[in-house]
Amino acid sequence: MQELIRDLIQKNDTRIIMIVLDGIGGLPINGKTELEAAKTPNLDSLARESACGLHIPVSWGITPGSGPGHLGIFGYDPIKYQIGRGILEALGLGLDVKKTDIAVRCNYATLRDGVIVDRRAGRIPTEQSRRLTERLRKEINRIDEAEIIFAPGMEHRFVVLIRFPEPVSPEAAMLPDTDPQKEGKKPLKAEPLSRPAERVSKVVEKLINLSHIILKEEEKANFVLMRGFSVMPHLPSFEEAFGLKALAIATYPMYRGLARLVGMDTPPVDGDIKEEIDYLMERYKEYNFFFLHVKKTDSYGEDGNFDGKVKRIEEFDRHLPEIMGIGPDVLIITGDHSTPSLLKSHSWHPVPLLLKSAYVLGGLSSRFTERECLRGELGILPAYQILPLALANSLRLKKFGA
Amino acid sequence: MQELIRDLIQKNDTRIIMIVLDGIGGLPINGKTELEAAKTPNLDSLARESACGLHIPVSWGITPGSGPGHLGIFGYDPIKYQIGRGILEALGLGLDVKKTDIAVRCNYATLRDGVIVDRRAGRIPTEQSRRLTERLRKEINRIDEAEIIFAPGMEHRFVVLIRFPEPVSPEAAMLPDTDPQKEGKKPLKAEPLSRPAERVSKVVEKLINLSHIILKEEEKANFVLMRGFSVMPHLPSFEEAFGLKALAIATYPMYRGLARLVGMDTPPVDGDIKEEIDYLMERYKEYNFFFLHVKKTDSYGEDGNFDGKVKRIEEFDRHLPEIMGIGPDVLIITGDHSTPSLLKSHSWHPVPLLLKSAYVLGGLSSRFTERECLRGELGILPAYQILPLALANSLRLKKFGA
Repeated sequence: MQELIRDLIQKNDTRIIMIVLDGIGGLPINGKTELEAAKTPNLDSLARESACGLHIPVSWGITPGSGPGHLGIFGYDPIKYQIGRGILEALGLGLDVKKTDIAVRCNYATLRDGVIVDRRAGRIPTEQSRRLTERLRKEINRIDEAEIIFAPGMEHRFVVLIRFPEPVSPEAAMLPDTDPQKEGKKPLKAEPLSRPAERVSKVVEKLINLSHIILKEEEKANFVLMRGFSVMPHLPSFEEAFGLKALAIATYPMYRGLARLVGMDTPPVDGDIKEEIDYLMERYKEYNFFFLHVKKTDSYGEDGNFDGKVKRIEEFDRHLPEIMGIGPDVLIITGDHSTPSLLKSHSWHPVPLLLKSAYVLGGLSSRFTERECLRGELGILPAYQILPLALANSLRLKKFGA
Repeated sequence: MQELIRDLIQKNDTRIIMIVLDGIGGLPINGKTELEAAKTPNLDSLARESACGLHIPVSWGITPGSGPGHLGIFGYDPIKYQIGRGILEALGLGLDVKKTDIAVRCNYATLRDGVIVDRRAGRIPTEQSRRLTERLRKEINRIDEAEIIFAPGMEHRFVVLIRFPEPVSPEAAMLPDTDPQKEGKKPLKAEPLSRPAERVSKVVEKLINLSHIILKEEEKANFVLMRGFSVMPHLPSFEEAFGLKALAIATYPMYRGLARLVGMDTPPVDGDIKEEIDYLMERYKEYNFFFLHVKKTDSYGEDGNFDGKVKRIEEFDRHLPEIMGIGPDVLIITGDHSTPSLLKSHSWHPVPLLLKSAYVLGGLSSRFTERECLRGELGILPAYQILPLALANSLRLKKFGA
C-alpha cells in the first residue's frame, strides 16, 4: 500500500490541517458521552457538511498508547512500526534522539547486600532525583567509544542515551531489562542477545557499576535499573511517504517527539489552543500539512473528570471558527485514541473522525459525536487510511491504473 | 496480530459468555427475515443497550461450513487454519482424534469387473452400513504399525482413523482421494505425494484390499472409497491464544469436536437450551469463557422452514432472561454463519452480532436483526476479531505501546 501511494503522489499547492484532540472518544455516563454532553454549535454545523466516520487506531479491541495512536493517524500501520519503550520515554522528555543512539528507561533503586530492596528508591522526590542525575552527568561523559547522555525525569525515573560514533541497528538494542521486577532479588545482567549488542552490553555494565560507585552513599537511590533498550525505528519520512512538508504544533514534548520520528518540523510551542492556532497561521505559507495537537481532552478523561473533558471540548469548539477561517483545502478533526472518563484510561473504542473538503457527500451526521459519526460516509476504517483520504481530498493522488 | 494479543493478555476474574445460534442470519421472505418476523422482546431490549454489528465469517462472498464458521468466532482466521475433511467428519461422529491419527472419510461403493458402478453402494440403509462397519472393525485391528479405528456414519458413510505410534505431520496425509468421482471408472490409487505419506499409502492399500476381501459377498457394498485424508490441525490453544479457560456446551458431537480442536473442555450435554443453560450455571465458577451452542436455528433454515426457524428464535428469546440473570461481564450473541430459509443452505451473508458489557455506546440498534445490527457501533468486522473485542470488554488486554 505504501509503495502504491508513493507512486501516485502528485504535488500541488493545497494545504491539509489535521487537528488531534487527544483521547477524544468517550463512553456514555447517564446516557451521553462527553462529545454528546458538550455544547458544540460550530462542530455540529461542520459535521453536517463533512465526511464523518470512526477510525480504529490499531486493531479491534487493542488499546493504543500515545505512540501507536499517533503513528496510526500519521499514516503508518502501528503494528508494522513499533516504537521501543526507551525511545518513547526519551521523546517524552524532549530529547533529540539520533540514529546512533540506544535509548534506555532508567530507575533509581535501593540495593542492599546485593539484592534490590526497593525498585523505585522510595519514589524519591523529583528535585532530589534531578540532583542525582546531574551528578551522574558530571561524572560520566563517555564509556568506551560511547557518549553517555543523561536526562532527568519525574520522581525515580530518568533516561540515558548511549550514543555511538555511527548509526546502530535494532539488533544492537537486544538486551534484557536489568530490573528483576520483584524486590528481594538480584539485579539482572544486561547479557547481549545478539552480536551487535555485545559492545552495548559492556558499556551498560560499566555504566551500572560506575553509577553505583558514585551513588553508594545515598540512602535510597544507590543503584540504577535499566529497561526498554531501543533504537529509533526506521520509518519512511512523512515527506517520502506522502509528499507533504509537515509542521507539528504541540505543546507537550512527547507529541513533538512522535512527529519528529516521521520527520515533521517540530518547533517548541508554548500556551494553549489559541497560541497553537496563532502559530499555525504564522507558518501557514511554509508547509502543506499541519498536525495540531490538543492535549487536555485526554488529561481530563484520564482523571475521570467527565465535566472537565466536556469543557475542553466546548473550548475547542469556540476556537473552531478561527481554524475554519484559515481556509485549508482539507480539514481533519479526530483523536489518537479514545479516553472515556468512565474508564479513566485510554481505550480500544473507535475514534470519531471528521474530514471536510470540497469533495464530500455530507448531510449524514448531525453532530461530531461517536454515534453521529457512525452514520457518516467514512464508516469505520483503520487509522492509517486517513492520510491517503486526506491526500485524495486535496487532489494529491493520481489515478491508479489506466 | 496473534502474537500481539498474546503479549497484551492480563488475567482477571471476569467471565465471557458467547451464545452461538447456529445459522442465525437470514434473508427476507415477504419482506421480513426470520429474525425480523420473530417476536423477541428480550433480545430487542438487550440490543438497545448493546454494541451491535455484523461479522463476516470468512471473507466477502464465502459461504462457510461449520468448521470455518466456528473457527472464526473462536478467534482463528479460518483461511489460515484449515480443517481437513476427514478430521471434520471424525469430529462430527464424536471421535477423539489424536495427533497420531490420519482421519479418512469412507464410502461403501459397488465394484464390478474392476470399475466402480455405484459410488454410494445404492445409499444402503444406515442399519446395514453399521453392521458392515462392525464386521470390518472385528476383522481389521491393525495394519503394519498402525491401529485401525472404524466409526459408522449415516447411510453409505463411515470414518477410519489410522493411528500411528507417534504424532504424524500434515505431509503424512498427502494422499489423493481414491474416489474416481464418476461411475464406470476404476478406483484411484492412494499414491503418496510426499515421503512421510509412503507408509500411510501402504496401510491404505492393504486396508482397501482387506476390506474388499471381507465384503466381497455383499451385493452392493463390496468396496471402500476413501477421501479427505487429513491430520489434526496445529492450532494454538484457546488458553494460549487468549488466556481463557473455556467450556463448550453443545449437544451435537460436531461442535464439541470443533471446540476440542482449540482445547476447550467439552463434556457431553443432553437436552435443549434449558439444559444447556442449567449446565452453564452449574460450572460457572470453574471457567472464564463459555461457548453455548444452539443448533436448531440452523436445522430449520436448512429445511427451508421459515416459521420453524422463527419459532426457535422466539424460544431462545424466552430463555434470554435466565442467561442475563447469570450476570456475565461480557455477553456475546451471534451465529457461526447465516442459513436463510430462502436458500435452504448455509450462505455468505454477514451474521448479526451483539456484545453487551459495561463499556459500550448502545442506543443504536432497536432490535437484534440483520438490518438493525447494521446501525450498530461494531460495523461489519471479520469474525475472528470478535474475540479480541471480548477480551477488551472484559478488561483483559493491556495497553499496546506507551
